[in-house]
Amino acid sequence: MKKGLKREIRVLGVDDGPFNKFKDKECIVVGTVFRGGNYPDGILSTKVKVDGSDSTSKLIAMVNKSKFKPQLQSIILDGIALGGFNVIDIEKLSKKTGIPVIVVVRRYPDFEKIAKVLAKLKKKKQLRLIENAGKPVKAGKVWVQFKGTSLAKIREIVRVTATRSFIPEPIRVAHLIASGIARGESKGDA
Amino acid sequence: MKKGLKREIRVLGVDDGPFNKFKDKECIVVGTVFRGGNYPDGILSTKVKVDGSDSTSKLIAMVNKSKFKPQLQSIILDGIALGGFNVIDIEKLSKKTGIPVIVVVRRYPDFEKIAKVLAKLKKKKQLRLIENAGKPVKAGKVWVQFKGTSLAKIREIVRVTATRSFIPEPIRVAHLIASGIARGESKGDA
Repeated sequence: MKKGLKREIRVLGVDDGPFNKFKDKECIVVGTVFRGGNYPDGILSTKVKVDGSDSTSKLIAMVNKSKFKPQLQSIILDGIALGGFNVIDIEKLSKKTGIPVIVVVRRYPDFEKIAKVLAKLKKKKQLRLIENAGKPVKAGKVWVQFKGTSLAKIREIVRVTATRSFIPEPIRVAHLIASGIARGESKGDA
Repeated sequence: MKKGLKREIRVLGVDDGPFNKFKDKECIVVGTVFRGGNYPDGILSTKVKVDGSDSTSKLIAMVNKSKFKPQLQSIILDGIALGGFNVIDIEKLSKKTGIPVIVVVRRYPDFEKIAKVLAKLKKKKQLRLIENAGKPVKAGKVWVQFKGTSLAKIREIVRVTATRSFIPEPIRVAHLIASGIARGESKGDA
C-alpha cells in the first residue's frame, strides 16, 4: 500500500465561465465533485455578480447545501476570483464550510501590478483578501495559496488530483464545463 | 495488443437537463467529448424547445460546428428524445454529421404505451421517428437503437465507454452536468 492520501478522496474543483464584462451582470460558476483525479461524481453550479462581492457567500452556500459536503476533503479554486474582481475570502470559505481551501495558479502572480489595478479601481477590500490568502508556494508544477490545512497535505492533494495534466483534474474539468455551457463549446485550458 | 477499438476513441455523449414542463420553454442540452470511457476533452451545449421539434437540427448544428467533429467516432444519446417529446431523428442526425448514432436506454421501452400517449397527443411524426430508429437490441447491459454503423461496432463502443458503471461514461457525465447546471446540484443516474 502506498502511504498518504487515498487516490479516491473526494474534492471539489471550482471555476467560472467566460463573460462579457460590458454586458453580463452575472457569470456561471461550476463545481465538480471528483474522486481524486479520476472521475466526477457530481456537479454543482451557482452564479456570481460580475465584479461583485458575492463570490464567498455564494460558494459557502453552494458547498453547505450539497449532499457531497460531508465527504469533501478540499475545495480547489482555479484562481482567487470569480466573475472578474469578485475576490474570494478563502479564510472565511474554509472556516464556514470546515473544509481546506486551495487556490491554484499556473504562474506566480504579479502582485505589484494587481495592487496598482485594484488601488486605481478603489478595491481595497479585494486587495486585502488577496494579501490575506498568503504568499503563493509551489505544489507540483503549480502555485498555491491555501487555508485550513498544512502545505504537506495540500501538496499531496495536488499530486493525487493532477492526473491528466499538471492542473488538478477537478478544476480542469470545471473549466471545460463552465466554458462549454457559457459559450456552447469549451475552449482552452483551465 | 488487444484487438478492436482503441480505448481512447473520441465519442460524444448527449443528455438534457431537467425542466418544468409547465413553466420552461427551453431546456439545456449538454454534450461531453470523451476519450473512450476515461475523461472529458471538451464540453458542448445547446438548448432545445420543451416538447418542440428542433432537437435534430440543434444537435446537427452543435456537432457540425464543433472543432472535435473530425475525431468523433460516435454520438451516444441518453434516450431518443430531449426536452420531453422533442424526438430526435437519429437517421438524419447520422447522415447530416456523417457519424454513427447510438440511443441508449436502461430498460426495453414499452412501445405500446408510448404509441398510445403520442397518438393521444396527435404526435404522429414523433411516433414515426421512434419506429424508424429500429427495434432496441442488447449491447452490454443496456438496450440500444442505432444508425450509421454495425451492431458489432456499437457493442464495442458501449463496452469501451462503460467504464464506471454499465452506462457509457460520456452520457453518465453529460447527465450529471446538465442536471447540475439546471438544478444547482446534480441528481440521480444518467
